[in-house]
Amino acid sequence: MALLSPELRAETVALCVNSEGRGSFCVNNVKTSDAAAEEEQAQSKKALKKQQKEAEKQAKKAEKQAKMDFAKDRYGVSAMVQSQERLGRTLIRVQDLTPEKANQLVWVRARMHTIRAKGKQCFLVLRQQQFNVQALVAVGDRASKQMVKFAANITKESIVDVEAVVQTVEQKIETCTQHDVELHVERIFVISQADARLPLQLEDGLFLPAGRATVNQDTRLDNRVIDLRTTTSQAIFRLQSGVCQLFRDTLLQKGFVEIQTPKIISAASEGGANVFTVSYFKTSAYLAQSPQLYKQMCICADFDKVFCIGPVFRAEDSNTHRHLTEFVGLDIEMAFNYHYHEVLDSITDTMVEIFKGLRDRFQTEIQTVCKQYHSEPFKFLEPTLRLEYQEGVAMLRAAGVEMGDEEDLSTPNEKLLGRLVKEKYDTDFYVLDKYPLEVRPFYTMPDPHNPKYSNSYDMFMRGEEILSGAQRVHDAQLLTERASHHGIGSHSNSSCYEDFYSFRYGAPPHAGGGIGLERVTMLYLGLHNIRQTSMFPRDPKRLTP
Amino acid sequence: MALLSPELRAETVALCVNSEGRGSFCVNNVKTSDAAAEEEQAQSKKALKKQQKEAEKQAKKAEKQAKMDFAKDRYGVSAMVQSQERLGRTLIRVQDLTPEKANQLVWVRARMHTIRAKGKQCFLVLRQQQFNVQALVAVGDRASKQMVKFAANITKESIVDVEAVVQTVEQKIETCTQHDVELHVERIFVISQADARLPLQLEDGLFLPAGRATVNQDTRLDNRVIDLRTTTSQAIFRLQSGVCQLFRDTLLQKGFVEIQTPKIISAASEGGANVFTVSYFKTSAYLAQSPQLYKQMCICADFDKVFCIGPVFRAEDSNTHRHLTEFVGLDIEMAFNYHYHEVLDSITDTMVEIFKGLRDRFQTEIQTVCKQYHSEPFKFLEPTLRLEYQEGVAMLRAAGVEMGDEEDLSTPNEKLLGRLVKEKYDTDFYVLDKYPLEVRPFYTMPDPHNPKYSNSYDMFMRGEEILSGAQRVHDAQLLTERASHHGIGSHSNSSCYEDFYSFRYGAPPHAGGGIGLERVTMLYLGLHNIRQTSMFPRDPKRLTP
Repeated sequence: MALLSPELRAETVALCVNSEGRGSFCVNNVKTSDAAAEEEQAQSKKALKKQQKEAEKQAKKAEKQAKMDFAKDRYGVSAMVQSQERLGRTLIRVQDLTPEKANQLVWVRARMHTIRAKGKQCFLVLRQQQFNVQALVAVGDRASKQMVKFAANITKESIVDVEAVVQTVEQKIETCTQHDVELHVERIFVISQADARLPLQLEDGLFLPAGRATVNQDTRLDNRVIDLRTTTSQAIFRLQSGVCQLFRDTLLQKGFVEIQTPKIISAASEGGANVFTVSYFKTSAYLAQSPQLYKQMCICADFDKVFCIGPVFRAEDSNTHRHLTEFVGLDIEMAFNYHYHEVLDSITDTMVEIFKGLRDRFQTEIQTVCKQYHSEPFKFLEPTLRLEYQEGVAMLRAAGVEMGDEEDLSTPNEKLLGRLVKEKYDTDFYVLDKYPLEVRPFYTMPDPHNPKYSNSYDMFMRGEEILSGAQRVHDAQLLTERASHHGIGSHSNSSCYEDFYSFRYGAPPHAGGGIGLERVTMLYLGLHNIRQTSMFPRDPKRLTP
Repeated sequence: MALLSPELRAETVALCVNSEGRGSFCVNNVKTSDAAAEEEQAQSKKALKKQQKEAEKQAKKAEKQAKMDFAKDRYGVSAMVQSQERLGRTLIRVQDLTPEKANQLVWVRARMHTIRAKGKQCFLVLRQQQFNVQALVAVGDRASKQMVKFAANITKESIVDVEAVVQTVEQKIETCTQHDVELHVERIFVISQADARLPLQLEDGLFLPAGRATVNQDTRLDNRVIDLRTTTSQAIFRLQSGVCQLFRDTLLQKGFVEIQTPKIISAASEGGANVFTVSYFKTSAYLAQSPQLYKQMCICADFDKVFCIGPVFRAEDSNTHRHLTEFVGLDIEMAFNYHYHEVLDSITDTMVEIFKGLRDRFQTEIQTVCKQYHSEPFKFLEPTLRLEYQEGVAMLRAAGVEMGDEEDLSTPNEKLLGRLVKEKYDTDFYVLDKYPLEVRPFYTMPDPHNPKYSNSYDMFMRGEEILSGAQRVHDAQLLTERASHHGIGSHSNSSCYEDFYSFRYGAPPHAGGGIGLERVTMLYLGLHNIRQTSMFPRDPKRLTP
């Protein structure tokens, strides 16, 4: 029925119809079917030989039938692309299929998104990342009955090369992103064939640009490779790549140096809680919970302004919408002259540059995500709103919350404060400065004017914390005092304390902070689960894929 | 002797001379001395009180002496910078101290690099990152005898603020980077005081811009924070930051998406050798030896072209000049249309953009490193030289090496081939394409024209491998065959094999590779140990700092 394009050095192929009545294709002895997973495990050499014979028989039959098919060279399953030759052919991107290309004959490589056969015609939707286009295979000069049948039987999610004429349409195609044109297919070849049985079905709305998916999150994460193909996932992770790019570009322009800090460390920082242990040859080591000490060492080593982007590990058994055991930290550390607000301003400037860049350069992605998960556009002020901790507490008390002056903010109170701030100042982003000293780590610089408070700050997006930072104690003597106040002594096995000794060789005053990448993406887009903004999330219950 | 600047809210200070005759400064009860490390551990409350009394006594004495010092407000040890207030004062960078600033009164913050007292004068060299300038404190209108003595006793590596007039000099100061000017100091305050006893001494040449350091590498790495302050280290890591930036900028411009891949994985890849084990709640996990499988999943998930920069872990007990247990991978993966050379060209383009960018934008850094470690400028061709493996073997054989056609290259042979290529083609960078199939991992695509070879390649800089890559098998059936040929079955506990199953849902042909960041920096600069280009190196014997 189908002979392969000689220009692709393809070989004979047969369309086999298995017992369930689904079509699948065999090329030589490369066979795939919807039951293949089970079959493979049971396959013995004998079975393989038998299959080969069967395939040859089918191939001969197909060859015979093909003789009666005038379009037989215009469709088929291509031989596996093994870099046989370097073709000069240009492939057009789906997003570039616009009325300007009307009447042009183009080659397009895309996935089979949907297939709908109707008599002598077959309508396809071809998808490429966030974009899709309608294509038509119709019996006529260029396509035979057999070719239409072949197209109708291609499995969803297969990758195909089509040669087609771009035609403008009279009525907008509302279901496709390229609504002004459709493709009239003249050749169609399968480049990579998907199993007929997909673990996530189209019927679940997973690939539709609009409407919530009905598949539960674990099924989607278990089959993340398919889930990531949805327009929503494509948009989320393209935008996330933009967050990293904007973060770095802004900092490099400000004269920051990018550093790489080790993830395997010899001693657990901050007392050793919530840290993963690693077997390291004949000894044990730990996974870094933060690059902070290393950033600080770089400041002591005169790098002046540094940043790093890398994994951060937390062995916390927290199963919430916003905790991961491994996430990506965007970390900043900076020497300053006289006041840590010099650093705070640099960080808020950077955040504002990120928000502006996303708004201006990723509007397509924002709109795509909004179609599935609606949210209000992210609002921010220039300059960034900065409140003191005491002001925040006062706002909460005015709203009926009972809490002490030096009490830390609970997560519900953070959220409530976010709503109060939004109402009063109309911003989704603000800084809370001057946290109580007692609720911050030992290396936090006390407030020179009020010893109960500290030169430390958190930043919030839509009421959730995305950054925690502070001026660090850069004086070795004071650091010793603060550590011993927190019960961390030089005798303890917390060797991070040892490393702080480098401060005694001269340390500039400095401050910094760490931002959670997945949280920034989640909260900017108004999503509700951090697993949506981590490609391959890790939590206490998930280590795969 | 010294009273602090009231504008900095500084407090009384006394210059104490300890038993070894070295000067150290006490501010209130904040005391540091060259024996402090030992003292602190033995300090009891009683001893502290005694010290306080002594300090008060000294302070009173100093106050008395200060009354006779007309310059007493012009020098001293500042109170710790605790963000008391935000000063409007502008600090000038050392590198900006040029004759254009002649006769201007400026503030500079820098480290005390060297101090040389000579009668009524004291010559200082002030250092800031890669730059330094000479400064003079001389008895006169603006400085008293006491002030000169104070300056002469400041410990090396302390951070100071100086107010000074910029003066052009008649004779070039060859020992400083700013050789056309010197600073005539009118005020000098210690911002952060270094211990008098440094673990690495100036006498070792460590901070000198020229000449090899005589301290051994382990001592330097043990005291990395000080070692990183050398002009050489400053230059190396600024250039390394540039490598990352150029890598990303080039790829983002080509339409690549940056991805973040997990480092904690559920199963060891490639058979489970050389992998670190992590305790993961009630189970075990592993540290990723490469992001490759995740990059490939992203290609299967339609991201088309992806890159990532992140740590890579290898539990190899290799103690060589070029192996680390944790290094930074610059990874690329890309779908292609018909031939993996489309990808190979993208990677070599990227490398060439990096080399050009370093040459054009980091010449200062290259020259700085060259002063200590001389090497020939790095040479490369456009387009990049690409040799086939068989050609490489022929060149080696012509040079007297005996080896089989399908034998892998040993490290000495790689180096020799690098020299032969340099002689013949005058390039330090080239690609070796079409490796024997047997010496490559199971997921490598066989050469369609010769089954003994494969669509795989390595890249070399100055004869050492910096990248390994290939077209990957994207066909689930062929992958199963290749895996079982390598003894990796679906029944094995190598679940990476499981993950490759996602290829059955349609996978585009793709290729990629991984670059070692530290190797690129090392080999570009012609250095000889990878520990020089890793800020905090990890090897089987080193986990600190």
